[in-house]
Amino acid sequence: MPPARKQPPKRQSGKKKVRYAVVGLGHIAQVAVLPAFAHAQNSELAALVSSDPEKLEKLGRRYKVKARFSYDQFEDCLQSGIVDAVYIALPNHLHREFAERAARAGVHVLCEKPMAVTEEDCLAMIRAAEENEVKLMVAYRLHFEEANLKAIDLVQGGRLGDPRLFDSVFTMQVKQGDIRLNPRELGGGPLYDIGIYCINAVRNLFGAEPMEVVAFSANNGEPRFQQCEEITSAILRFPGRERLASFVCSFNGADVSTYRVVGTKGELVADPAYEYAGELKHRVTIDGRTRERTFPKRDQFAPELISFAECILTGAAPEPSGWEGLADVRVIRALYRSADSGLPVSLEPFARDDRPTLEQEIRRPPVNKPQLVNTESPTK
Amino acid sequence: MPPARKQPPKRQSGKKKVRYAVVGLGHIAQVAVLPAFAHAQNSELAALVSSDPEKLEKLGRRYKVKARFSYDQFEDCLQSGIVDAVYIALPNHLHREFAERAARAGVHVLCEKPMAVTEEDCLAMIRAAEENEVKLMVAYRLHFEEANLKAIDLVQGGRLGDPRLFDSVFTMQVKQGDIRLNPRELGGGPLYDIGIYCINAVRNLFGAEPMEVVAFSANNGEPRFQQCEEITSAILRFPGRERLASFVCSFNGADVSTYRVVGTKGELVADPAYEYAGELKHRVTIDGRTRERTFPKRDQFAPELISFAECILTGAAPEPSGWEGLADVRVIRALYRSADSGLPVSLEPFARDDRPTLEQEIRRPPVNKPQLVNTESPTK
Repeated sequence: MPPARKQPPKRQSGKKKVRYAVVGLGHIAQVAVLPAFAHAQNSELAALVSSDPEKLEKLGRRYKVKARFSYDQFEDCLQSGIVDAVYIALPNHLHREFAERAARAGVHVLCEKPMAVTEEDCLAMIRAAEENEVKLMVAYRLHFEEANLKAIDLVQGGRLGDPRLFDSVFTMQVKQGDIRLNPRELGGGPLYDIGIYCINAVRNLFGAEPMEVVAFSANNGEPRFQQCEEITSAILRFPGRERLASFVCSFNGADVSTYRVVGTKGELVADPAYEYAGELKHRVTIDGRTRERTFPKRDQFAPELISFAECILTGAAPEPSGWEGLADVRVIRALYRSADSGLPVSLEPFARDDRPTLEQEIRRPPVNKPQLVNTESPTK
Repeated sequence: MPPARKQPPKRQSGKKKVRYAVVGLGHIAQVAVLPAFAHAQNSELAALVSSDPEKLEKLGRRYKVKARFSYDQFEDCLQSGIVDAVYIALPNHLHREFAERAARAGVHVLCEKPMAVTEEDCLAMIRAAEENEVKLMVAYRLHFEEANLKAIDLVQGGRLGDPRLFDSVFTMQVKQGDIRLNPRELGGGPLYDIGIYCINAVRNLFGAEPMEVVAFSANNGEPRFQQCEEITSAILRFPGRERLASFVCSFNGADVSTYRVVGTKGELVADPAYEYAGELKHRVTIDGRTRERTFPKRDQFAPELISFAECILTGAAPEPSGWEGLADVRVIRALYRSADSGLPVSLEPFARDDRPTLEQEIRRPPVNKPQLVNTESPTK
């Protein structure tokens, strides 16, 4: 039984490090989140939460974390007094529940993307954080990453002229049995997992929110795609002299991770655009002259830990906020409504004034891929 | 008054060269069609047809063509006995009328793309050619071009695995006053002029015809775009385990001409993909290994003249046929119906068995850009 709601303890005052529990020890937690603590000077890996005793034991030993909890013991973790924040790396449909429980216990919440499965879930998480006076951030790693921030700066600065178009392709081969192939109600499918990168990219490159969307989904009938679609292709209409964005995402394609912004006098190609396990590259052509730029592989997860910890320590408002998470989820949901109904779907106006800027950049060296414990790469 | 229909004279028997009249002396005729005759050994530039006396005189002198006709004298040209075929490079809404008149006079028709403005126009042209026993071909230059044919061969040969996605961007800056900015009823707008390349590419790369399409058009309100849209973005659903294609075309973007096919185990990027005035390039990645290939600039118009003349001389059926022209026009029209109505549009099954193959390749050296007479580049 969950404990009664109480006022959040002011544990963090005067402290230099924010103590995190990492909740969920799947692939992304193991290859990216846990190793990132080595680069996050204001953050401490204080506890592990998993349903797998072997993961708890092996990873606890590897990272010298003595506080280990099963999911059933999550309340004990929250009440233990040894964690200030949780990093939620659970399956998408569990984000809301675990975020609300952490908030009620006065523990700050850093939550993987997608923020949750529905708009209602996102709003409930925002409300829980507000009511319990805890910080809430959604883990958009590219909001701290040089290539992405430079792209936003270039486009918003008018270097391409008026940015009129965005087009993106994000595809990978997801293995049968992977959690990404869950039914849509559990947050499975390519839109929740990778389409969200395209949506987040164009919203911030254009500095605007889509007003109308349409989508086609497709399925080749393989057993892998019994519970979610194989491919979704989408068009988004933006206000501000009617810009258009298109993207396609698939769990049954060779690795492609790219977007292109076409302006009235130039274009920016980011390729690869969304990766965390390698270099990112830009090709910018303005007035017919092309310049290429490579951004080195870096740790994209430590910056999230650092930024969120800084907000906790200073009282600043985290960005990307819950509203940023909701902004993408509402587009995903509209796209699925369109794909299901065969009709375009209009979106209500949605206020987002806070856009990522170059000042948010945090650079940390890359991590080495650690040995995996009872998990595997989602892709072939 | 048009002359009565008559049996086509069998002028071509025993002849080595097909005598063409080029009808319409705008930009594409001047920079590409007229110079191509120098590389078309079985073709002869026999007559010029234009409403501009200065073009007739200067181009007639340059190419040593004494037979020069105004549009009002088109019947005289057809009846003169000195032309076997016309190359129609007129504004799109005039294609049907001039094609029908040529056919009725027993003169073969090679017509620029788009074949015509409506499906009805295309069918009337096909019927006129059949009834009058003349050949009809639509001038898809890329059907004879190495890069495009290699791409089709690669994709159809299964090198990328199962080709699941196509995505394309084709944009340019069209100058105010250019004929491409005509109202849609006259065949103006980006779909008729450049979107058609994306449609033609994916139809032949997939070897299939779309079954359902959706489109958004957009307009920034500039005076240039008072009569046609600025941008159209489209999604096409193909049969055969539900493949999806997307493309966006615009008359208000920096020069971009690219497509990408993503298969289950590799991708092909063509960039530039659709140009005739420069090199074409492929980047093929299969199982993670990337290979780049550059295809030299070549004359893409002489091959059309040569292939069509060969069909006239031998009696073979021309490809790309009128059916190929219609196959694209019906997709364009469905996309505009979708953009207008806001609804996806279903397409009837459409039989196209003849697909371009490597055997169609014809190589000719590039032409130099000649001095223009009373015309200018459509782009900034």
